Amino acid sequence: MLICSSLDEVKRRDAALRFIASQVTEKGRESLYDLSGLAGGFPLKKSDLNLLETYAGQAIFSQGLQKEGKKHLGSENVLAFNRTSAAILATILALVKAEEEVIHYLPKLPSHPSIPRSAKLQGASYREFDKINDFKLGEKTALVVITGSTMDHQIIPLSDFEKIIKISHDSNVLVLVDDASGARLRTVIYNQPRGLDMGADLVVTSTDKLMDGPRAGLMAGNSQLIDIIKNKAHQFGLEAQPAVVAGIVRALEDFHPQRILDSLERKDKIYSQLALLMDGVEKTPTGFMISAGNILKEINNEEVLNLSEREIATLMAMILLKDHNLVTIPAVGMPGVSPTIRLDLAAYDAGRLSDDQIIYAITESLKRLKQVLSDEEACLSIVYE
Amino acid sequence: MLICSSLDEVKRRDAALRFIASQVTEKGRESLYDLSGLAGGFPLKKSDLNLLETYAGQAIFSQGLQKEGKKHLGSENVLAFNRTSAAILATILALVKAEEEVIHYLPKLPSHPSIPRSAKLQGASYREFDKINDFKLGEKTALVVITGSTMDHQIIPLSDFEKIIKISHDSNVLVLVDDASGARLRTVIYNQPRGLDMGADLVVTSTDKLMDGPRAGLMAGNSQLIDIIKNKAHQFGLEAQPAVVAGIVRALEDFHPQRILDSLERKDKIYSQLALLMDGVEKTPTGFMISAGNILKEINNEEVLNLSEREIATLMAMILLKDHNLVTIPAVGMPGVSPTIRLDLAAYDAGRLSDDQIIYAITESLKRLKQVLSDEEACLSIVYE
Repeated sequence: MLICSSLDEVKRRDAALRFIASQVTEKGRESLYDLSGLAGGFPLKKSDLNLLETYAGQAIFSQGLQKEGKKHLGSENVLAFNRTSAAILATILALVKAEEEVIHYLPKLPSHPSIPRSAKLQGASYREFDKINDFKLGEKTALVVITGSTMDHQIIPLSDFEKIIKISHDSNVLVLVDDASGARLRTVIYNQPRGLDMGADLVVTSTDKLMDGPRAGLMAGNSQLIDIIKNKAHQFGLEAQPAVVAGIVRALEDFHPQRILDSLERKDKIYSQLALLMDGVEKTPTGFMISAGNILKEINNEEVLNLSEREIATLMAMILLKDHNLVTIPAVGMPGVSPTIRLDLAAYDAGRLSDDQIIYAITESLKRLKQVLSDEEACLSIVYE
Repeated sequence: MLICSSLDEVKRRDAALRFIASQVTEKGRESLYDLSGLAGGFPLKKSDLNLLETYAGQAIFSQGLQKEGKKHLGSENVLAFNRTSAAILATILALVKAEEEVIHYLPKLPSHPSIPRSAKLQGASYREFDKINDFKLGEKTALVVITGSTMDHQIIPLSDFEKIIKISHDSNVLVLVDDASGARLRTVIYNQPRGLDMGADLVVTSTDKLMDGPRAGLMAGNSQLIDIIKNKAHQFGLEAQPAVVAGIVRALEDFHPQRILDSLERKDKIYSQLALLMDGVEKTPTGFMISAGNILKEINNEEVLNLSEREIATLMAMILLKDHNLVTIPAVGMPGVSPTIRLDLAAYDAGRLSDDQIIYAITESLKRLKQVLSDEEACLSIVYE
């Protein structure tokens, strides 16, 4: 057993962050390639630096936030949060009473835990669906949350989207679209309308997903609702501070949908080459992934039977990091994170790598993985040192 | 009536932020003097700028946070939050169960609302005291919160502090010190020990109070407790993101207690001159304040009787801002903020103003206030334009 507990996962994450810190300190940030798709950029200008304060920064950047946020999401009013989970919490606390109900519709279960957790905290009940025919409002439903696209980048069909908004509004139930990556994935790649343009009351997106902003939540919608949610956010310290707002504004200014579209073409090209070299690669909308199960199949080695899929995928992610400086989520994620290795070609750093470099890193890492699997000492050192 | 509702206060705040934005845009940040004591600095180095990301930033700055945070607060483990209110929420959610009790002791009521609000959200009961002889644990008390110093910079006597910690620990009840400004005020000016050095289990401080860090919360304490609280913080998006962590680290590196001590001396000097020119000035630990009631007395003008104390103090704060570029809380604060005008000489910008400039700004603003009070149009324009 290589990874026995969530404490071991904390140690794995610490080891990955330690490696990144020493790499960046010794060789500079450009020696690192974060293809996680969750790098969380902070593209401040140097002239922004002395304006990041509570009042001066608020004054300067809140104007930019309204302007750029409205352009991106289309709305009356915009509000930024420390994280999308914090936005969900503020919204449920502001709009749902104890004993009322939150309903969650998503393309595919399981749900992100922030929605049921926030409902529970407020003393509200919670139901979730991923089949449109099962969707039904309750007598006490106060809020419907629609997840526009899942972590796996599955999106909700347009007709289902419209149907849920219609059913909800016919009963005067508010609709929040949790469009973390969807605000860009759905619109840029699948040509779906923006959540608010389909009639939703509120939408929230994560400014680090398919764009180069900080890990933060950007909400837009009806002004009256935004004001109520803002008040709740300030009470519990959930709102984004001026420096983060500045990062969001600059990232929105720099947002070019074309980079997402370019990654589609590049993905097909790299995929067609990789597929000749190994079996387990699958496409995602803006890159590709290798599931833990597929890595195990790829290995096809009797000696590894005492390691779990998760352990093998974690090893692979740590080899990608340590041998090739590629950052992926199974290496740096929190305990319990998905062990699927995803490489996002819409990530900023993908532009600094050639197709060959990416293919080489994956195939070489797989080769190294096969070599070390029977050597327990080597495995421990890769994951924990 | 000049200010009729909290909506009017929102408009007043917007007007102040608009003025600050145009001032900073046209004349640069150095034309502004934020003496609120809550400026919330963000002293990043230019070389930090490309490291503020989710994983690279986390890797680099979390090491600095542990080092500097432990030095400042003295502890095993450190955790940063988006705001101190978010830290309070995470702690109560993590350590207190529904039906249990939170007790809050503070030098003087009223309490900061984040503590009772968080207890209520968790379904816990809440009691508060500001007299040591009234303090008594209940059967279900799970957490005692001690506020080290109030917004008005009143501090808790050392003997009361020690007594509460002893009573709590004798019954195995955990103690959190809410030391927002106290972590510096109590230790630097009043020579009290740090909260953890007195035996508290956890302490949280606001990194924008009496130091030049971002508006954020820095918690320290027992590692096992910090881990539980960290888990809860991540669930609801309450933790500080890497860019904010970077701001905290740089501010802690730059923290010099001497600047607080210097402000004491300067305060006495300016106060002795101001007291000759007007009656209503009072000392605070690191500056002075003019209460709304004292401004009203100072005016002593029959014609103002249709304006409330709050309205007159707001006018004064807006004149200080617009005529002298001095930022104070009654101008930029949220609706319901205290109308007392405070000038903090420990604020970073205070170093760029001479004593004479500060005295001139206050006395001239008072003169202008007297002139405009009977002119409704002028008052409206000062507060809302």
